[in-house]
This record gives sequence, structure tokens and C-alpha cells, in this order.
Amino acid sequence: MSRLVGPVEIIGVGLLGTSVALACRRAGIDVLLTDVDADHVRTASGLGAGRARSAADRPQLVVVAVPPDHLGGVIASALDGSDAVVTDVGSVKAAPLASLASRPDAGRYVGSHPMAGNERSGPLAASDALFDGRPWAITPHAGSDPAAVALVRELAELCGGVVVELTPAEHDRAVARISHVPHLMAALTAGRLAEAPDGHLALSGQGVRDVTRVAGGDPALYSQIVGGNADAVTELLTEVRDQLDTLIAAVTRGDRATLQSILATGNDGTRAIPAKHGGPARAMRSLFVAVPDEPGSLARLFADAGEIGVNIEDVRIDHDPGRPVGVVELVVDDALADDLLPALESRGWVSHR
Amino acid sequence: MSRLVGPVEIIGVGLLGTSVALACRRAGIDVLLTDVDADHVRTASGLGAGRARSAADRPQLVVVAVPPDHLGGVIASALDGSDAVVTDVGSVKAAPLASLASRPDAGRYVGSHPMAGNERSGPLAASDALFDGRPWAITPHAGSDPAAVALVRELAELCGGVVVELTPAEHDRAVARISHVPHLMAALTAGRLAEAPDGHLALSGQGVRDVTRVAGGDPALYSQIVGGNADAVTELLTEVRDQLDTLIAAVTRGDRATLQSILATGNDGTRAIPAKHGGPARAMRSLFVAVPDEPGSLARLFADAGEIGVNIEDVRIDHDPGRPVGVVELVVDDALADDLLPALESRGWVSHR
Repeated sequence: MSRLVGPVEIIGVGLLGTSVALACRRAGIDVLLTDVDADHVRTASGLGAGRARSAADRPQLVVVAVPPDHLGGVIASALDGSDAVVTDVGSVKAAPLASLASRPDAGRYVGSHPMAGNERSGPLAASDALFDGRPWAITPHAGSDPAAVALVRELAELCGGVVVELTPAEHDRAVARISHVPHLMAALTAGRLAEAPDGHLALSGQGVRDVTRVAGGDPALYSQIVGGNADAVTELLTEVRDQLDTLIAAVTRGDRATLQSILATGNDGTRAIPAKHGGPARAMRSLFVAVPDEPGSLARLFADAGEIGVNIEDVRIDHDPGRPVGVVELVVDDALADDLLPALESRGWVSHR
Repeated sequence: MSRLVGPVEIIGVGLLGTSVALACRRAGIDVLLTDVDADHVRTASGLGAGRARSAADRPQLVVVAVPPDHLGGVIASALDGSDAVVTDVGSVKAAPLASLASRPDAGRYVGSHPMAGNERSGPLAASDALFDGRPWAITPHAGSDPAAVALVRELAELCGGVVVELTPAEHDRAVARISHVPHLMAALTAGRLAEAPDGHLALSGQGVRDVTRVAGGDPALYSQIVGGNADAVTELLTEVRDQLDTLIAAVTRGDRATLQSILATGNDGTRAIPAKHGGPARAMRSLFVAVPDEPGSLARLFADAGEIGVNIEDVRIDHDPGRPVGVVELVVDDALADDLLPALESRGWVSHR
């Protein structure tokens, strides 16, 4: 059984690579930094993420963190350049693997994919806490060396990720469904907003903001991600198109039963997403509280909720088009909501279910 | 110029009707309650929303708050039953109006639509604060009496709504774009989750939860809403299908330029949604903070942010599949983010951009 002792080499010190580097440094592991952009290495090094790799260094583990289109080539170079275990943190897994399959040393490669990141990029956006509590997919292939799989799993856990093991093909089909297709659907929905007549968007509420939020991501990056997972994405998008055709026909014909059935299937889908902490779904209820839009007012609300002793499971702030009061949605355990509402009102908050 | 003095009759004392009633009562206006379900009237009356209408009552304004399929018929009865101004709070405006157009007294009818509500229903879910700061569409038709329009506007403002005036046809096209089509797209996306193989949803992050959240709404209600706005919805869904066909072809062929262009149009759409308080969009930045999942921890975070003096514009709590720590996303003014991050860290919070 191998143990992760380092050095760990990071190839590509952007947001993800630098965050992995910082988590390794936090654990006291020697980290070697490599990037086509020497400025990135200097920046990441200045953040305490590690040091530039020198010719004498012998990494135990290489982590490839480059854009999707470059994964296959850089993983191959990493296998050529040392006898280390090699992994990557890319969003697609089958396509890079296909380019390596014929190599006799492919057993040293184990793909991985932490489900983290945000709308910023580059080493300055990195953090050793980026992966805390996030799912981290590990995708061994048929020829992966079990010791290599164990080493990559150790890296994921060291970074705070929650390991989910899948085959590369399963991973790609899973992320097509829970990430790539939702992203594309958000982009298609948001695309209709870009062409809205003057004034029509003034009626926008939280719903459309939620549906379209992820469509704010970088088009260049997402076109690589989606393009690298074309088969799984196409299969699902084709299913969506068939459903959309059925939906259009139902709306046009006034066929309410079919329309309602499509909406009910969507209902089922929202309930299929695993609950927080992976446990069974608990019944939740939303309370709505009016909050002045000024520093300190949310703090007072949460201080009051904390003193009442009710855990807030989720929060939304409804953007408000015309006045300096926001509506804050607090999602709490259904069984506790009946206590929280009067307790908040007794502290002067205007709230409702 | 008429002034709203009451009585106001509410027909249909569910979530919206009872909330309008409570807001009117708050302003000291006499409220008459009517519903096919006598229990609803007793419940709403017990909440202080008003009293059952008697034969001698002469309402100044009637508010019809019944499900979409019944709007036209109930509005017509309300015009027959008094010489009051009549409005409604339904989600679609052209179809009910069409059924009234030939009436000589149609000038007393002015449609309206508050952009509020939540996933609960019935009078017990009502609140006089439901409409605070929310857009409230008012949709006069060509024959609407200006005094009737002024009276309905006064009701919307009394309820705390932010009035947006549109023609009925414009309204229906606007809500198709910012509400009905996003809802249907969310339902189609969520529908793919309902059929996911075991384990694939374990990788779900906040993105897919946001895209699909509204699809949790009541299928029976939304099939009436969408069915009542069939023309505008069909027109937009047909545009979406054309874009989806282009997208599928681009992904299948590996045409990255077209894929990226569709994603870029989605990007533009997310920026087209008006900013909070209707002002120009300010640059915002997200900070991510690790927070233990226990009562009081969010309170401490917001208390610290409040003491630092930075206004939190939006909050998200990332659901966490495996551990008792959540990641809270704080959205703040870009210019203030650089101060907040080190200030939070000096108070012991683990955070990153």
C-alpha cells in the first residue's frame, strides 16, 4: 500500500492546480510547480503553493490541471517524464484516456475530477479549502494499478474531497446529466433573455435568476468541456429534444395531461437529487423575512435565528427591483419552522411562510 | 381621481388572495371574503383577513384570485355582481380578457399580476408582506377606464408591490420569457435526473440544484399557467428548439465556434437581467467561507461580516454530500471583497475567492 509522501508535481497552476498545491502544502508535502506561463508559477510560489520543478526532482504523484483540450497530451508527457503516478483534475475522462490506452505504462494513470471551482480563474483565486466537502470523482480504468488508485484517493481525501468512484465512461455520462446538459439548458434559457424586448425583464424574479445563473460561466472553457464529452452530451440532448417536441405539441394542442405529466417528471427529478450530507431527504420549509438592505441586518437576522436554536439549511436573498428591503428565504427543517416563525416575529422581524 | 377606500372584495382566498386581504386590512380597509370553499373563508377570517361578504355589501374593488382556468368566468361574474372596479392577480392576462372583450362594462376590468408566491398554497401560507418589493404588473386594455387603472395601481402600491405597466399581450410575452419558459426548461432538465442511473447524482453540485429548483412547483397549477399562455410559450419554445437543434449539430460535428457562440449568447442573457433595486449592474464578487453545519455558525459569520461593515448582496449555501461543513458563498461588491477576505480570516474563518 503506497502512502502519499510527495513530492507532488502540479502541471498547470490555475485555480484548481494551485488549490491542490495549497492543500498538499498544508499537509506538509513538498510541491513542484510547472506551467507554460512562468508568471503563474511565480505567483503560485509566492502564495506558498510550492516551488518550480528542477531537473533533479522525482515526483511521487503528478497532477495534471490543464484545460480539457490539452489533457491527453500533457498526461502522456507526464508519463514520459517520470515513473510517478499520474492523475488529472479535468471535467471529462474518456477522451483523454482514449489517447493513452495503447501505452504500456497506462497503469500509472488514474483520472480524477473534483466537483469544485467558481466563476474566477487563475492562481490568485485558489484556496486550500476549495474542495472541502465537495464530491471528488476518481475514475480508474481497467488497467489502472490498484496502488495508483489508492494514491489518488489519498490525494482527494487530503484535499477534503468526498470520494465517489466511477468508471471513466460512467463519470462522463454522470457529469453530462448533472452538469453539462444543465449548463447548456441554462445557456439556451438565458439566450432568450438576451433578445428580450425593452422592459420585459423588469418582471424577473428569483426563479429565472436561479435557472440561468450557471450560464454566466466562461464560454471558451465550457465549449472545451462540452466538446470533450460530445457523445454523452449529444445522447442526453437528443432525449431533451424529443421531450421538447412532445411539450411543444402538447402546449399547441392544449393537451393538458401530457403537459402535466412532463411537469410531474420534472418534479420527480428535483426530488432525486441527494439531500445534504448524502442522507435521506428531510422535509424542508421556506420562511420569508423582510430585511433592510444595509450592513448588519443579515447579521442580526442570523444572530436571532441562532439564539432561537434553529439550523438554517439554505438561504436565498431575493433581488429587489425597487426598494431598499430584500426578502430573505430561510430554508429550515419542516418540524422546526413552526417554532422559528413566531420566535422571529417576537424579535421584530416581518416574516411569512 | 378615485381613491381606494374600500370595501375590497377578495374572490378566492388562497395564498395570493388572502395576502392581498391582509395587506388591505393592515391599511384599515374593510375586506369582504368570498370562496367556493367556506372553510377557506373561515380560516382567512380567523387570520384577520376580513369578513364574509353579505348581500348588502357594495365593494369598491373586487380582486379575483382564482386558478388560471377559472379567471375569465369569475371576472365576468364579478362584473355582473356589482358596479365595482374588478381586477385579478392571475399569471396570464390575454386569455381571460378575450372572454370579456364584448362586454359593455369591460372598462371596469383592469388585469394585474403580482410576481410573488412560493411553493406553499392556501390561506395559512398568506402574509401581508408577500408582495413587499416584488414587481407587480398592471395590464390595462384599450377600453380600461383610467380611474379603474388608478385604483388598481393604488392597490398594488398599498400591498408594497413595484408597479410595472404593460399591455396584456406584452405581459404574456414577458412572463413566457422570464417565467414560463424558464420553468419548462427547468422541468425538462430535472426530468433527465429522474431517469439517472444509480450513483450518478452523487456528483451533483449547486449548479444543477439552481437550474432545476423551480421545477419543484405544483404540476397541476403550472399546467394551467402554461396552458393559458400557449401562444407566447409556443413561440419561444420553438426558438429554443431551433437553438437546441443548432447546438446538437455543433456538439456532434465538433463545431466549437458555434457551441461557443451559443454559450456566449447565454452569457449576455444573464447580464441582461436587471440588477438589484433596478439600478445599473454593479461588479460583484463571490467569496467562499467554510461554515460548520450547526446552529449559530451562520450567525457568527454574518455578525463578523456586519462588524467589518461589508453589505452581503447575496448568499448561497452549498449542500454538502458527506461532511458537517458547508461552503457559504457570499456575494459582495467587487470593490469591497479585497477588504472582507483578510478581515474574515483574521477572525478565524477559512475562506477563499
